[in-house]
Amino acid sequence: MTTPLGPGPEFDRIRRIAGELGNSSADLGDDAAVIPDGDGSLVVSTDASVEGVHFRREWLTLEEIGWRAAAAALSDLAAMGARPVGVLAALAVPQSASADDPSLVMRGVGAAAAATGARVIGGDLTAAASWVVTVTVIGRTANPIRRTGARPGDVLWVTGALGGSRAALTAWKRGATPADDARAAFAHPLPRIDAGRWLAEHGAHAMLDLSDGLAADAHHLAAASAVRLDIDLSRVPVAGPAVVPSLAASVEPPIFAAQGGEDYELLVALPDRFAERDIRAFEAATGLALTSVGSVHRGSGVRFLLRGERVSLEGFDHFR
Amino acid sequence: MTTPLGPGPEFDRIRRIAGELGNSSADLGDDAAVIPDGDGSLVVSTDASVEGVHFRREWLTLEEIGWRAAAAALSDLAAMGARPVGVLAALAVPQSASADDPSLVMRGVGAAAAATGARVIGGDLTAAASWVVTVTVIGRTANPIRRTGARPGDVLWVTGALGGSRAALTAWKRGATPADDARAAFAHPLPRIDAGRWLAEHGAHAMLDLSDGLAADAHHLAAASAVRLDIDLSRVPVAGPAVVPSLAASVEPPIFAAQGGEDYELLVALPDRFAERDIRAFEAATGLALTSVGSVHRGSGVRFLLRGERVSLEGFDHFR
Repeated sequence: MTTPLGPGPEFDRIRRIAGELGNSSADLGDDAAVIPDGDGSLVVSTDASVEGVHFRREWLTLEEIGWRAAAAALSDLAAMGARPVGVLAALAVPQSASADDPSLVMRGVGAAAAATGARVIGGDLTAAASWVVTVTVIGRTANPIRRTGARPGDVLWVTGALGGSRAALTAWKRGATPADDARAAFAHPLPRIDAGRWLAEHGAHAMLDLSDGLAADAHHLAAASAVRLDIDLSRVPVAGPAVVPSLAASVEPPIFAAQGGEDYELLVALPDRFAERDIRAFEAATGLALTSVGSVHRGSGVRFLLRGERVSLEGFDHFR
Repeated sequence: MTTPLGPGPEFDRIRRIAGELGNSSADLGDDAAVIPDGDGSLVVSTDASVEGVHFRREWLTLEEIGWRAAAAALSDLAAMGARPVGVLAALAVPQSASADDPSLVMRGVGAAAAATGARVIGGDLTAAASWVVTVTVIGRTANPIRRTGARPGDVLWVTGALGGSRAALTAWKRGATPADDARAAFAHPLPRIDAGRWLAEHGAHAMLDLSDGLAADAHHLAAASAVRLDIDLSRVPVAGPAVVPSLAASVEPPIFAAQGGEDYELLVALPDRFAERDIRAFEAATGLALTSVGSVHRGSGVRFLLRGERVSLEGFDHFR
């Protein structure tokens, strides 16, 4: 256990586990585990999607449940700058499911794997009280980008835009139907594999994927790298579908976006030599925006600023 | 999808999944997935243990739940003749669990990993309605032993003894307390890593671990290798704790043992040159018995024989 973890009850549990495992555990604090392999590294991550916790059955088709579970796991490889190789899916299937239902979930898993150049190489099938789709992904990289490498002077960047997934969740939770683009953000997230590899090849010091939301994940990056992050919320790229729901909820759009989880964009610390020319090259290579949202400093914790004022933000935690 | 699968509703579902995945799926029919890596292979498997399906909370301590889940997955590496390297565990934790409970499960996972020379390298922690412990294991081998290689003329062997796990299950299911040795067989199975590696190094043609029970798993080996297996039930090594419960249930002990799942012993097809001297060497190296239980022939399916009579046996299937 060498990577310090951020605050929150889920991380308290992980800290306890790491303490329990002692010397038998490796570094549990990053997006994925790294196994040295020849000249490069294997990178492995496992991620469970649980009915009633990560999704409700009535929100998503079975194929979308599979896609989303696989995309969430593949996003961990993106955050390491790795190329996906193989995907395994363990399905716990409720007794109420029809004989074809596991195949539909696996169609989604297979599509997400294929979209990133990986194959489904194994799995497991068991009965259960409700759907649990646990996806394990294996990738390779010559140069895994960890959470630990951010340095004072680095600039913080975010790929794409944030808050789309939360916009869908907000609608569903009040019994409404989300807009199509909000629903797509939640049901069909795109793991940023090409972006992660490009950033790894262009000097990224530290990277993670925004699964818990910028408000929470920034703390994890700060803790892992033992630095302080200053994030200017006014610069946070807000996803189109997040604007109306945030205003309807009387929350400023960048705060709504920063507190929304499961966008699966990347947060990356880059050396300050990174310039406008590099941004254009990134955007040309990936089709994604890259937006600077803050800076790295000596110290600890995260300062969120909006119009020069400090703002206190909480992220999303399944155990809260 | 190149490995033919045996009969049963669970395998019907896996067949549907493989059909659905088409070219994006690799070979889903073996104990573990094989990824070529340099001069050797990486071997990866994932396995879910579900509360209410694989165990009940009142049967096992949390540490045993973790051990058993990890041992079941590590057993898949044993069946490939591989050396474990890393273990990942995704825990779905019921809301009723205390803050320390996930650590106790992980203590068991860590102990099983350490017992086979592997480390816990990652995981995931989510809320859920009940415990689901999904363990992914990664191993290495120069020579993965698949289910597909049994040839007419081979002899079938079983490591250790069978039926101990079922003896415990039988007691619990009628509200009794199992004998200590039966309980240990269920709660603390030992993945046969050393045995698997020894057999791989000494000419094993095909191998699998007895998770569903000999009665079911023999069909999987026969189907995968496109051969017929003849199994002499009178030769099946019956675990000590299985004898009394089988007689109490008016089932002949070798039938009780062959139909019991989750013993995690190995079934292996060896060339017929394998001799008494080799058995002694195996037993000296592993501390385990190795018992010949049958033979491999041209044809298909499995013939179970008891005192020269054919016997029809069904295995265990979570979907039945």
